[in-house]
Amino acid sequence: MDYAKESLKRHYEWRGKIEVAAKVAVDNKEALSLAYTPGVAQPCLEIQKDVNKSYELTRRWNTVAVVTDGTAVLGLGDIGPEAGMPVMEGKCVLFKAFGDVDAIPLCIRSKDVDEIVDTVALIAGSFGGINLEDIAAPRCFEIEKKLKERCDIPVFHDDQHGTAVITLAGLINALKIVNKKAEAIKVVTCGAGAAGIAIVRLLISHGVKHIVMTNRKGAVYKGKEGLNPTLEEMAKLTNEDRESGSLADVIKGADVFIGVSGPGTLTKEMVRSMSKDPIVFACANPIPEIFPDEAKAAGAAIVSTGRSDFPNQINNVLAFPGIFRGALDVRAADINDAMKIAAAHALAGLVSDKDLNADYIIPEAFDPRVKDTVAAAVATAAVASGVARLTK
Amino acid sequence: MDYAKESLKRHYEWRGKIEVAAKVAVDNKEALSLAYTPGVAQPCLEIQKDVNKSYELTRRWNTVAVVTDGTAVLGLGDIGPEAGMPVMEGKCVLFKAFGDVDAIPLCIRSKDVDEIVDTVALIAGSFGGINLEDIAAPRCFEIEKKLKERCDIPVFHDDQHGTAVITLAGLINALKIVNKKAEAIKVVTCGAGAAGIAIVRLLISHGVKHIVMTNRKGAVYKGKEGLNPTLEEMAKLTNEDRESGSLADVIKGADVFIGVSGPGTLTKEMVRSMSKDPIVFACANPIPEIFPDEAKAAGAAIVSTGRSDFPNQINNVLAFPGIFRGALDVRAADINDAMKIAAAHALAGLVSDKDLNADYIIPEAFDPRVKDTVAAAVATAAVASGVARLTK
Repeated sequence: MDYAKESLKRHYEWRGKIEVAAKVAVDNKEALSLAYTPGVAQPCLEIQKDVNKSYELTRRWNTVAVVTDGTAVLGLGDIGPEAGMPVMEGKCVLFKAFGDVDAIPLCIRSKDVDEIVDTVALIAGSFGGINLEDIAAPRCFEIEKKLKERCDIPVFHDDQHGTAVITLAGLINALKIVNKKAEAIKVVTCGAGAAGIAIVRLLISHGVKHIVMTNRKGAVYKGKEGLNPTLEEMAKLTNEDRESGSLADVIKGADVFIGVSGPGTLTKEMVRSMSKDPIVFACANPIPEIFPDEAKAAGAAIVSTGRSDFPNQINNVLAFPGIFRGALDVRAADINDAMKIAAAHALAGLVSDKDLNADYIIPEAFDPRVKDTVAAAVATAAVASGVARLTK
Repeated sequence: MDYAKESLKRHYEWRGKIEVAAKVAVDNKEALSLAYTPGVAQPCLEIQKDVNKSYELTRRWNTVAVVTDGTAVLGLGDIGPEAGMPVMEGKCVLFKAFGDVDAIPLCIRSKDVDEIVDTVALIAGSFGGINLEDIAAPRCFEIEKKLKERCDIPVFHDDQHGTAVITLAGLINALKIVNKKAEAIKVVTCGAGAAGIAIVRLLISHGVKHIVMTNRKGAVYKGKEGLNPTLEEMAKLTNEDRESGSLADVIKGADVFIGVSGPGTLTKEMVRSMSKDPIVFACANPIPEIFPDEAKAAGAAIVSTGRSDFPNQINNVLAFPGIFRGALDVRAADINDAMKIAAAHALAGLVSDKDLNADYIIPEAFDPRVKDTVAAAVATAAVASGVARLTK
């Protein structure tokens, strides 16, 4: 199928993929008096007395804003806020279908960090969580950091953390197959955008000790000239041995390659230079860093991509609906690393030891167990890490 | 029924009166590929080429933000943004039920005009219209004015203009009964808040020539000490004869009283002092400026209130759903006076000459003809006044 052409046709037919539905009928005076004036004054006064009642008397408990500035939409780049809306609406459909979450798309007409932060912070009282989406790096890091400081609800940039959670889930299972320990492996990443940075941070939180990041300019190491502030920070956390050179140089002997870069950046020769049973996550979309058949021909034990037509798809829909479901269920004030790692373990655990194999390290996107399993793990981790305001 | 108690109970049961519904199923890979990646890139690119396509390829064409800062919620005053949410959700229910409009409630944590304006202006690309709600005067005037300048979509403060439209509709019909002309009557208003100001402005646009505004400090006239900037402006537009004194002083000989003030401000004596066949709109809620039986006992020919348990209710649900429906249908860039006056005439016209009487000057809130009739009139007026971007 020509997805581009067919999707455009459908979008013209749909005229929007979400709508607002009333849960309450107002078809007579009494109903109107209860849902609206004069009765509605009473729930208002209850919330005035205790603002937490907004989670019980309005839809806030289940509502997430999906916020973009339109600067990094899919692989399309900076196409503008309105042009990002079809993706945001699609995300809201996924939130509902896979997480029972009410998600509202908001595109912001600004590229200024503080304007975006102010806008989102000022409307945060309407929501139980904020999902940032398709905001370009490095601005996305600063926006998320500032919003986390200012908001009393979870702020989660899915392009970073959703991808990181599923990558970690896949890695946990892949390491079982090749019988290696997270603490002992060497990971080389390629691509230092939003996803690349978040993956490395989460791997470190998970206990991976040896990571070398690379981008178009080669390995990232402490003291390298021309690093941006984010990469300077990452250089302190990774590459202890200060390895330098190109991807081809630093990938020698590595156990794991994780690519969130562009098409074709990983060659067969590079895979051959890795250690025994190399694990290759080639997540560039739609053209991966290396195609699975090539990687396997070069000796890769396990290959994962971002595509649904190959095994082991890193698909964000596996993570964000359940993560927000779990966070909302316990009214979490944050989505922290403990919750993300719990989500990764929960996802990994859905692949039983019996079923686990090189072509099945990550559950399928439509596995009906995903939402509840992830949500429960995230909620438990939120309680354990002290950010839950409800204990179920 | 104890509406306060029962409404609170229902709100705890409802846990929100609206939700987001997906219009598209994503229950298999192909559906996902059309509603989301990779197919969704194509509608995004179409909007990038022509931002107007956002009205065809997303839900923008039918979506309105219901925005409050929580400073003038119902009669409760400044109760805070989150506490205003039950009213905003209720409003969204009414938007859907009475106008087929998708409305999204947003409460803003600020009382600063520019912060509120910036917030709304920056998210305007997500919406086809902005409904401001329960924002205190005089801030509401400045917010609306600035937003109208900055936004390319209609901005409509319902507390002002919705009330004004229905008041005008009622007045048009009331004048038919007493056989007086708008140009010739003297109107005295009481209350100079958001609704009071907007009513006077719309009456002037409609052609009423003699209006005296009053507030707690008596008549408003040019040169009076202590007027705020809004009232200074209104003083230039009203009270040509610079009448001074109390409401009791200036109401003598008036044909129409319009109250949007507080309980009991109009006495029987005052009604008796009005001209022949006085018209009394006593809209303070829940306790009107004078109760209908008292007003009639004092000689009022026609009485209207804001309450559903008396005839001739000024109920905003008669106006805003159809007004936005009409504005959205022709993709209006504004909701201007011509559109508001058209809405008032359309509402008034729903009461046939045969049915028209002192207890039936305004259609009932549940009259099924209201939405389409108002919407058609508003759309036609939008086209005629040059603010429509679509001509149906």
